Amino acid sequence: MNRYLILFFLLLNSWMTVDSAHAQTKTGKPNFIVIFTDDQGYGDLGCYGHPTIRTPNLDRMAAEGQRWTNFYVAANVCTPSRAALLTGRLPVRTGMCSDTRRVLFPDSDGGLPQSENTIARILKKQGYRTAAIGKWHLGHLPAYLPTSHGFDSYYGIPYSNDMDRVNSVEAREALMNPKVEYFQVPLMRDTSVIERPADQTTIVKRYTQEALEFIARNKQKSGATQPFFLYLAHSLPHVPLFASSKFKGTSERGLYGDVIEEIDWSTGQILDALRKTGLDKNTYVIFTSDNGPWVIFDENGGSAGPLFGSKGTSYEGGVRVPAIIWGPGRVKPAVISEMGSTLDLLPTISALAGATLPTDRVYDGYSLIPVLDGTSKSPRNEMLYYHGTRLFAARKGAFKCYFYRNNPQGYPEKMEKLDTYTLFNLQHDPSERFDIAAKYPEKIREIDEMVRQHRASLVVAPSNLEKRIVSQKK
Amino acid sequence: MNRYLILFFLLLNSWMTVDSAHAQTKTGKPNFIVIFTDDQGYGDLGCYGHPTIRTPNLDRMAAEGQRWTNFYVAANVCTPSRAALLTGRLPVRTGMCSDTRRVLFPDSDGGLPQSENTIARILKKQGYRTAAIGKWHLGHLPAYLPTSHGFDSYYGIPYSNDMDRVNSVEAREALMNPKVEYFQVPLMRDTSVIERPADQTTIVKRYTQEALEFIARNKQKSGATQPFFLYLAHSLPHVPLFASSKFKGTSERGLYGDVIEEIDWSTGQILDALRKTGLDKNTYVIFTSDNGPWVIFDENGGSAGPLFGSKGTSYEGGVRVPAIIWGPGRVKPAVISEMGSTLDLLPTISALAGATLPTDRVYDGYSLIPVLDGTSKSPRNEMLYYHGTRLFAARKGAFKCYFYRNNPQGYPEKMEKLDTYTLFNLQHDPSERFDIAAKYPEKIREIDEMVRQHRASLVVAPSNLEKRIVSQKK
Repeated sequence: MNRYLILFFLLLNSWMTVDSAHAQTKTGKPNFIVIFTDDQGYGDLGCYGHPTIRTPNLDRMAAEGQRWTNFYVAANVCTPSRAALLTGRLPVRTGMCSDTRRVLFPDSDGGLPQSENTIARILKKQGYRTAAIGKWHLGHLPAYLPTSHGFDSYYGIPYSNDMDRVNSVEAREALMNPKVEYFQVPLMRDTSVIERPADQTTIVKRYTQEALEFIARNKQKSGATQPFFLYLAHSLPHVPLFASSKFKGTSERGLYGDVIEEIDWSTGQILDALRKTGLDKNTYVIFTSDNGPWVIFDENGGSAGPLFGSKGTSYEGGVRVPAIIWGPGRVKPAVISEMGSTLDLLPTISALAGATLPTDRVYDGYSLIPVLDGTSKSPRNEMLYYHGTRLFAARKGAFKCYFYRNNPQGYPEKMEKLDTYTLFNLQHDPSERFDIAAKYPEKIREIDEMVRQHRASLVVAPSNLEKRIVSQKK
Repeated sequence: MNRYLILFFLLLNSWMTVDSAHAQTKTGKPNFIVIFTDDQGYGDLGCYGHPTIRTPNLDRMAAEGQRWTNFYVAANVCTPSRAALLTGRLPVRTGMCSDTRRVLFPDSDGGLPQSENTIARILKKQGYRTAAIGKWHLGHLPAYLPTSHGFDSYYGIPYSNDMDRVNSVEAREALMNPKVEYFQVPLMRDTSVIERPADQTTIVKRYTQEALEFIARNKQKSGATQPFFLYLAHSLPHVPLFASSKFKGTSERGLYGDVIEEIDWSTGQILDALRKTGLDKNTYVIFTSDNGPWVIFDENGGSAGPLFGSKGTSYEGGVRVPAIIWGPGRVKPAVISEMGSTLDLLPTISALAGATLPTDRVYDGYSLIPVLDGTSKSPRNEMLYYHGTRLFAARKGAFKCYFYRNNPQGYPEKMEKLDTYTLFNLQHDPSERFDIAAKYPEKIREIDEMVRQHRASLVVAPSNLEKRIVSQKK
């Protein structure tokens, strides 16, 4: 009898799978949610090996979807990394990097140019509803805000949560023992400031509420699902750290853990909402981070786990990030140790939405659909590690070659051009401990040739990060 | 209709759980399998965050059971760590450590004294069948072998797989590019040498076969299960590394990964055998490692993941090990970030088998049953980090205080007694980056007092590791 019942369940389960696959055809274009955290390290989730941070929702998401272990952002700091995700292009092509001012500041007079295409703009043309929630950091003047870049709506802070600091508190003290009033960061809706300083203690909760409302609104439209794209870019766990009263003091990891566990809760709320409404069968959710952990802030900074280096460096810890891709019935559950990048999200999402990429510009990404489907290996076999406009390192297959060295903590910067390149096998040696340059000169030559080809056609755009608003002194 | 079917399955599932709990009572004493690997680091399994080593069987074991993230061995090298697991006592109490010869060698004239009690001996008195398979390293002379310590049978190598090296090959070359014939290590059955050198390329496969036969033999006895205890101590991934032809060259992590993936396969074979025979409902399986990775062997050494330090050190990377405890219906699935130790296995297993511990000696462990049951927190709140007979550090709660410093790679030893102690919060800072001694002097005082109390009653046994066989020159 038991065997029959188990068999029955198995059949039921397979029917449900078929049904969900069928739903793809029925409901048309899939939805996309990109959840992007700030300064969260490779090692800061339970499923990536953190000993004390508990992330049951993200762990479940990983078990049901794909957990990528060689997934990269295109820059080791905030502004260029975000530009790369939304445009699918290296920041040197879009002018969204600089060697003097590495990110945008409140006194910046620039941002992501109107001439750049974003995932939101591409999807809008395909009939999507689009929303940006959270940290933007691609320009806070009206021409650069999300609503000027293909998003129907925006709710969040326009730059980093440590900016607009009041002068009365010493910088490190403000970041190590933060209070809301130390940072005059504005909270915006669309193009208007609605709160200043933003109450950062409730900000994860409020972003989540906005996200849930956006999902519910689009579910309700005219019976069928209207496809939507939600870009939820948490402004945490960037210092200063804040958690809501429900999470503060609850994690074994201290305040940093409280923040990650609140983001885990937030992700669980979103996935649960999708499950409850049946939208899970038609939605891809991607969870990743903008760069490595900012370790100079001691226990308030995160962990790159086994990886060497941190935010502000081109070592693996600076640019390899946790990445979970979820879509029941669409994304084949697996651990993926092939390469992927936030640069690949635009081509992947565009293809899934049925959009053709315009041919008027160079894109630096690949469609990862064959990996999501489980039908083939990742088309990405190389990674370029830009630090501002300088190429610090390049990876081809398992091998990564360094042209520059830097302080592994990132700050203060101690950049040095290498006379003799170093080489690491990242699949054998993820912590980059064993320089094997002497053993594999041919690998260095191959990478050199790859870089030469890349540079031959590269047009470096003038930087948009260096101009300051004249009237401001900051 | 679907809802009813799902409900039906849920009920069926809960009934199966009740049934398996019932099985405990029906079948009497539970079986125990301890799988103990050699020099495997905290970070070398998929479920502990390794980016490229694939361990689907151990990951599943962890998901079905408990994955411990603060689990310790009692010594940072082989012999004392193994003695502590089997006796439940600190090596300073059993004479199984030394400051001059840290482990036993082929020329050693000592081993675990007959006066010591082992898990095997305790269980044998409770009617268990007992087998030791794999590396012993607690004395290779007849009086010290497993069959003299409560095991009915023994199959394996009596000391480390890098010993008895032939003189014709330089040591590092032999360990980095190993061949079977470089090491004249014997393979023994009970007290007889049956193969020399042991063919290490097939050794994981052969240990596994022996284990499966032992399990099958005990299952068949007289209809009901005769309780058994299997101590399967893999001699790998200690260098020299060897994998069978089926695994060699297959892992993305290189040879070290091949070895771990073969051990993962082996574990899967054992768990599958338990599942197929229904023994899973009545068996506890514990998977752990004897100390941290031997990182001085470059890519042939493992990884401590986010932890600092390695084999031969009292940093976390030297003594915190992966630990998975499995027993469907008996062990409540969870990630456990409370403390546990191999010292706790003897008291835990004894209690589960219904044995009362003799009161003629001091045991250093706790019964972890409340954690396995999910009824309470771990009774272990402290850890003593012995390095030979010297106490290098001590932990109480989240705080670890260092009295000595050493080379983080362990070899060559560079020991230094600290004038000023250092202090770390391991739950906040698992990588031991931020010394907070100045901030928490009261924590240092508490740990000092704990150590004082420990020392007040400690009787240090004379070392059994220093005496050499007179006739040998080695």
